[in-house]
Amino acid sequence: MLTNRHIVLLGGDARQIEVIDKLNALDARLSLVGFDQLNRNFNGAMKVNMEEIRPREVDSLILPVSGTNKDGFVETTFSNQPIQLTKDWLEETPEYCTIYSGISTPYLDKLSSDTNRAVVKLFERDDVAIFNSIPTVEGTIMMVIQHTDITIHHANVIILGLGRTGMSLVRAFSALGAHVKVGARRPEHLARAFEMGVEAFYIKDLEKQVHDTEICINTIPAMVLTSRVLSNMPASSFIMDVASLPGGTDFLYAKKRGIKAIITPGLPGLVAPKTAGRIIAKVLADLLLEKFAEESEQ
Amino acid sequence: MLTNRHIVLLGGDARQIEVIDKLNALDARLSLVGFDQLNRNFNGAMKVNMEEIRPREVDSLILPVSGTNKDGFVETTFSNQPIQLTKDWLEETPEYCTIYSGISTPYLDKLSSDTNRAVVKLFERDDVAIFNSIPTVEGTIMMVIQHTDITIHHANVIILGLGRTGMSLVRAFSALGAHVKVGARRPEHLARAFEMGVEAFYIKDLEKQVHDTEICINTIPAMVLTSRVLSNMPASSFIMDVASLPGGTDFLYAKKRGIKAIITPGLPGLVAPKTAGRIIAKVLADLLLEKFAEESEQ
Repeated sequence: MLTNRHIVLLGGDARQIEVIDKLNALDARLSLVGFDQLNRNFNGAMKVNMEEIRPREVDSLILPVSGTNKDGFVETTFSNQPIQLTKDWLEETPEYCTIYSGISTPYLDKLSSDTNRAVVKLFERDDVAIFNSIPTVEGTIMMVIQHTDITIHHANVIILGLGRTGMSLVRAFSALGAHVKVGARRPEHLARAFEMGVEAFYIKDLEKQVHDTEICINTIPAMVLTSRVLSNMPASSFIMDVASLPGGTDFLYAKKRGIKAIITPGLPGLVAPKTAGRIIAKVLADLLLEKFAEESEQ
Repeated sequence: MLTNRHIVLLGGDARQIEVIDKLNALDARLSLVGFDQLNRNFNGAMKVNMEEIRPREVDSLILPVSGTNKDGFVETTFSNQPIQLTKDWLEETPEYCTIYSGISTPYLDKLSSDTNRAVVKLFERDDVAIFNSIPTVEGTIMMVIQHTDITIHHANVIILGLGRTGMSLVRAFSALGAHVKVGARRPEHLARAFEMGVEAFYIKDLEKQVHDTEICINTIPAMVLTSRVLSNMPASSFIMDVASLPGGTDFLYAKKRGIKAIITPGLPGLVAPKTAGRIIAKVLADLLLEKFAEESEQ
């Protein structure tokens, strides 16, 4: 349990509601900054302003998935008030006060080194990336069905990358009856693709593999779908890029060639905000429980 | 091959383009009525008016999926000209001239018995229903992802009916990681659900099964999701009814209770017109080849 642990949430979107529910259930003392317009109240969680919080009493700080912008302000779906995390404020927190963010930002990194407070980047964790691959896959399935005039079933699908998201994509698209081919760089990924019963090839041979591609899904955050590759692909094919921005597709060339290519960051929050929130809530709860259990032991 | 067989297409939508391509490849002589606005020409297929066709030279007649309306007019996506199939016209065709339609209509049934010309209803065929279940499943997946804030993965999903579409739904939703329960009437369907590794129950017990349902998909064309059943279902659940109109859901009561319930007829043509067209084209080609092979033998 997190009884008497004071945890402050600074801003965020609908996903944070799952976090609040989860930490509430663990009996934490919650202060919610940037939730004044949220049409719901929580037993044991107080909606407050930044000024009402005494930093010295903060055991942990939870930021939105996006962290802060370059000036330290956080995103607030449920408030119009600007909320800023400053060095002065953070320095007044106890030294063990950890900051939890989805991703790191230059501002956060600097704050962390200036104040010597730990910043945990949830989305860099393997478990979170794997959990998040589930709604990412469903968002991809939705986009592919919307943007093609054929079924996924029996379509020629190429999936680039067999990492945390690639593996989930291969499993789902194979299960829906697609003819899946995987392009990857590492020999162990080709071996895994073979074990999973799908065809595999080295990324360097990509341009020889795309002549009959109907759907191409990229997970590799590097330029892989180059103009050279795209020029070998049918103009009727559809590209869904789920790699981190800016993706791995030459979007300008794709457009020129008439190939529909889409990149949509943040699919989990878009297609399944509740599930995406639960993923963050579960991992956060585990981390906080572990942190405070260790402290009690010391 | 269908060399020298004169086949007339009367109206229809994008799906008929696949039919034209397929019959063209089999060397049929094609007359296309109601395609004047289609921005594409076909070698070996003539765009004509109804008046330009000599019914005596027509070997087979292909109607749109929807057949005719109550006055004998057919749907035409690619024309503004009204096209009517009349008794007088049909009586002039050779006796062996078969009419192919997606579904039967009272007008068509009467025409068939008045003129003694066979009407083949493609969508009543088991093979077509099974092929069509594939795009129906993908349309359902798309709708479910769009209309829920959770993932299909790990959701509590009830599928009603284990017929031609039900079985495809069970396979796809299980493969995506849902917790699938099947409600059916026939003991052999419960046995099959068990074999497929999912839970199964008798439809008569439905109201006891829905208290934790998050997604419910109905394929049974009879009132099964009654107000009594719906009153036991969480208000946050989502119902997708894919049974033939009017479906099997008390939509009025669902709305009253705040349960989102949707019925969308014609999912295959909506989400995958090309695949849906190919399904029709393949079955039509098989039927025509068989028909004319038999005639040649006689």
